[in-house]
Amino acid sequence: MKIRILTTGGTFNKVYFDAKSEFQVGATQVEELLQEANTDIECEISSILRKDSLDLGDEDRALIHRKIEQAPADRIIVIHGTDTMVDTGVHLQGIEGKTIVLTGSMQPARLRKSDAMFNLGCAVAAVQLLDAGVYIAMHGRIFDPASTRKNVKESRFEVTG
Amino acid sequence: MKIRILTTGGTFNKVYFDAKSEFQVGATQVEELLQEANTDIECEISSILRKDSLDLGDEDRALIHRKIEQAPADRIIVIHGTDTMVDTGVHLQGIEGKTIVLTGSMQPARLRKSDAMFNLGCAVAAVQLLDAGVYIAMHGRIFDPASTRKNVKESRFEVTG
Amino acid sequence: MKIRILTTGGTFNKVYFDAKSEFQVGATQVEELLQEANTDIECEISSILRKDSLDLGDEDRALIHRKIEQAPADRIIVIHGTDTMVDTGVHLQGIEGKTIVLTGSMQPARLRKSDAMFNLGCAVAAVQLLDAGVYIAMHGRIFDPASTRKNVKESRFEVTG
Amino acid sequence: MKIRILTTGGTFNKVYFDAKSEFQVGATQVEELLQEANTDIECEISSILRKDSLDLGDEDRALIHRKIEQAPADRIIVIHGTDTMVDTGVHLQGIEGKTIVLTGSMQPARLRKSDAMFNLGCAVAAVQLLDAGVYIAMHGRIFDPASTRKNVKESRFEVTG
Repeated sequence: MKIRILTTGGTFNKVYFDAKSEFQVGATQVEELLQEANTDIECEISSILRKDSLDLGDEDRALIHRKIEQAPADRIIVIHGTDTMVDTGVHLQGIEGKTIVLTGSMQPARLRKSDAMFNLGCAVAAVQLLDAGVYIAMHGRIFDPASTRKNVKESRFEVTG
Repeated sequence: MKIRILTTGGTFNKVYFDAKSEFQVGATQVEELLQEANTDIECEISSILRKDSLDLGDEDRALIHRKIEQAPADRIIVIHGTDTMVDTGVHLQGIEGKTIVLTGSMQPARLRKSDAMFNLGCAVAAVQLLDAGVYIAMHGRIFDPASTRKNVKESRFEVTG
Repeated sequence: MKIRILTTGGTFNKVYFDAKSEFQVGATQVEELLQEANTDIECEISSILRKDSLDLGDEDRALIHRKIEQAPADRIIVIHGTDTMVDTGVHLQGIEGKTIVLTGSMQPARLRKSDAMFNLGCAVAAVQLLDAGVYIAMHGRIFDPASTRKNVKESRFEVTG
Repeated sequence: MKIRILTTGGTFNKVYFDAKSEFQVGATQVEELLQEANTDIECEISSILRKDSLDLGDEDRALIHRKIEQAPADRIIVIHGTDTMVDTGVHLQGIEGKTIVLTGSMQPARLRKSDAMFNLGCAVAAVQLLDAGVYIAMHGRIFDPASTRKNVKESRFEVTG
């Protein structure tokens, strides 16, 4: 089974630039993490955006949408910032016949302590086991974007309504 | 959904004891890793054994079997050494009505680079999504113990025959 | 021998706040690092400022100056942002009878890969071995603030002139 | 200033081999750590032994002695297991005109939490600042091998007598 992984930026990918004294979205860490996980699943990784998810606009979401539709694989993981992960998830719900799992992290993968590796593991399992549809995999739970929101204070996602 | 996590030892849990200049199975790191993952899934963790899996005997497997049957939860993760993970998996296949996922790691969770966090993420997603049965979740793949073996040279599991 | 450690902020102490999607100066990591180093040297740690060093003004430097003069210890380590570490070093050169070592890091101590622990080790050795005076200990070298500048491009310090 | 670093094995260098389910002395991590520290000090690293220090015999100590005498540099760091670091230190005290600093760690450098990076930082500063002689740099303190012993229970060195 081949999985296509699209990275769009977000906290997951942040690295620290001393020259600017700030964290910025850097090259994606996904490849490094998958090596660390010693996985032999065929994954094709494409870095299509490098933005904080608050900076994603309509064109960016259209790009993500298009890249998923064009991908030969029907198992798709999208690495995404958490602030608008729900919006992108809802936007992607029109796509048929593909299992799409959005994930990200609250702490950069480069930190000693981070939820990135755990969330990536969840997403890799979920994208193989779930039927076609759009899902958010964060902190060990699987959400339907249509009924989910980010609870900023708790640094978690939760079901609405 | 409540998940019961049983830890039995193995590489996953190894810590380094300077006094003996060797790595030994220590207190389990599962709780620490789940905090790092910031999960809000209700997990109950029990440390039932602290052994290298090569040292597990019939009585140990009977104990694991019994603990799973007695657990009120029907979603069970077993943290287990990789060398005999397949044997224990086969041994547990008689249990009905429960989803049992065995996982572990090739590198101790305490190392800077380890597959432990990724495998734990996979197991947490898999145990929620899979039907009743016994599974091995390692390096991003889900195996049926009845047709799996460890490839020691590759540090991976693979499907037999 | 008792060492007084004053923390003023800087990259060394940065932690990631998801809520603001940025790194900010957090509680100091020095205590945690010294425990990890298993040191039994008597160190008294005071957090006197929590700022990027570019934001330090005359009053802040006056505060650092005063805290060093008032400290009963005559071996002082100052954890400081790198951008104006030289300026603060020059400012402190009037203090007599004390060995003052400024250090910091180019990557936050909380990252998987960071120079913080190494620089702290250098500073702890240097503050014990050097005569009274003001020094900068970074990336394994000991500098005199009066003839040093930060080379931003190289992320290193270098001797001027 | 050029520093010669000789690695002899010990906990500092231990890596985990899944195939044998044990930690063994691996390739040295010193080069990796010095890169992480971003140091520009000229260091020449030679791996001359790969042993637990309890396994070092007279011939091994003669080899270390010879390699130090033959090195063109007069600033020498020896990475060494802690159990017999004192013995090797005493053995080297005949060498004249060189500053020799022995260091190592109680936890492997590859662990998430380790004293290796801190001790290496101490050793790099100490070897530049100390007069000719033999020293042990561990957990932030500088010892004279002739009056030092390892306190196994405390995982520290201490002054005898």
